[in-house]
Amino acid sequence: MIDAPEPALVAGEAIVRVRVAGVCSTDLELLRGYAGFDGILGHEFVGDVASCEDAGWVGARVVAEINATCGRCEACVGHRASHCTSRTVIGIRGRDGAFAELVRVPIANLHRVPTHVSDEQAVFTEPLAAALRILEQVALAKGDRVAVVGDGKLGLLVARVLVRHGCDVTVVGRHARKLAIAKLFGARTAAPGELATKSLPLVVEATGSAGGLTQAIALVRAAGTLVLKSTIADHATLPTTGIVVDELTIIGSRCGPFAPALAALADGSDPIDPRPLVDHIVPLEHAARAIELARTPGTLKVLLDMR
Amino acid sequence: MIDAPEPALVAGEAIVRVRVAGVCSTDLELLRGYAGFDGILGHEFVGDVASCEDAGWVGARVVAEINATCGRCEACVGHRASHCTSRTVIGIRGRDGAFAELVRVPIANLHRVPTHVSDEQAVFTEPLAAALRILEQVALAKGDRVAVVGDGKLGLLVARVLVRHGCDVTVVGRHARKLAIAKLFGARTAAPGELATKSLPLVVEATGSAGGLTQAIALVRAAGTLVLKSTIADHATLPTTGIVVDELTIIGSRCGPFAPALAALADGSDPIDPRPLVDHIVPLEHAARAIELARTPGTLKVLLDMR
Repeated sequence: MIDAPEPALVAGEAIVRVRVAGVCSTDLELLRGYAGFDGILGHEFVGDVASCEDAGWVGARVVAEINATCGRCEACVGHRASHCTSRTVIGIRGRDGAFAELVRVPIANLHRVPTHVSDEQAVFTEPLAAALRILEQVALAKGDRVAVVGDGKLGLLVARVLVRHGCDVTVVGRHARKLAIAKLFGARTAAPGELATKSLPLVVEATGSAGGLTQAIALVRAAGTLVLKSTIADHATLPTTGIVVDELTIIGSRCGPFAPALAALADGSDPIDPRPLVDHIVPLEHAARAIELARTPGTLKVLLDMR
Repeated sequence: MIDAPEPALVAGEAIVRVRVAGVCSTDLELLRGYAGFDGILGHEFVGDVASCEDAGWVGARVVAEINATCGRCEACVGHRASHCTSRTVIGIRGRDGAFAELVRVPIANLHRVPTHVSDEQAVFTEPLAAALRILEQVALAKGDRVAVVGDGKLGLLVARVLVRHGCDVTVVGRHARKLAIAKLFGARTAAPGELATKSLPLVVEATGSAGGLTQAIALVRAAGTLVLKSTIADHATLPTTGIVVDELTIIGSRCGPFAPALAALADGSDPIDPRPLVDHIVPLEHAARAIELARTPGTLKVLLDMR
């Protein structure tokens, strides 16, 4: 990963010197062959702009949205640019990522990081934005009951976002250490099978496993909503008869908004501090070791350090 | 069916003398054993109130909502009574239906039929309400493009409802005769495979088959919505990875509102006239023949006549 040639500056893009990058479950899926990507991985990162045609950006500490879009297709113009049909995605599709000293990103994707947000916090902007996406998709009020099935990194961030929004959140999981973080984040916790079936108006699936999906849909009450946050590479499926009879809504949820994520990290009164999720910080030259650690069951976030 | 004992009047309910009842695909599924119902079938009907504790109803020509609810559970009080956990459903669950001379229904479920709406129109109130349910679940504007996959009775009613709402509707089907009705109802038509994949913001699945479901989801563009209208007894499933990556919304849709359905049937300026869907009108004593006709591939609506 660190022996790749340095990216060349192109019009409309910036070169960012990476400070810290996070290893995501999607990276592990990509290494297993999901989506056929063979570039440099890494889509969660914070760094400093090293070069850019717009001198105002040079030296800024930044994070970057991951979808590089055409700005012209029906999705870009009409509904949602993150679904641009010719998009590349940093470290995921057609574009090298941030497990490197330098990464090239569109200027339009850059966001400045507030001074008092540390690198170890800012590197969570992308997954936090993905968690915040749920609030764009589902109308949620204070006190609404939600179950988050899955006590991994994404499930815990989703729980924190929904607690901060005022929801009554229960994280369903099997790992005492992770459920302790859920409690720290203000959520209730439950073991699988502990919550009553068909009892919740909103359930978020964040396990990434077919079994977790089955658990999650069983918890949704009639006329309720299931949000799918994790891509499940082993082709999980949903039965349709129950969806119709109980009039369920199933919502796929992927990338989210960076500005509110940065605002939540920087918030003076009720900030989201994701640092309890960091298990290991590994220098870039030991990237292979970082992947190995990230693959170890029970591990939460592994960060690569290029500083 | 016609040899069952007459229903007895109970408090809060009315006895309706059935004029006309419709055979629905759900009836055919129930006869195959779906949902384990062994009472008298028939949930689409129009008739006259024969007896009732409230004299104001006696003699009224009526239709009746099919979910008989408790009025006390969380669904009844809190969100949606049609999902009452202890509900019975006329001709479907725990309560005899209308393939009989008399049927007993809760007074609260009765709706008067406007004088100028014929029995052959009024008998479509229930399936028309189910089609109208989509407008309660999805925000649709004039000119919105929608594909309805399936040219059967329900698909055609859905198409008519969406055309009347101002949408640009294409019915996808294989049957020239049914597609001609789609055109009569103001929709465009297409053969399976003719529309571009991932091209439509809203697709309604109304085929009742696993193959139709696969066709339907393939037509939904990123960030689009698939409405599932048909219960598919052979356990059709949806793949989840595409739902997440394309951020699709899947909405199960079942029973709908009777008042707007009657209003649409009675509308002076742009009425919905479902009579082109009637293929056979069969006297009740030939109910078995009616079921046989309804099972014949290509048949649209079969009505049972008790007049």
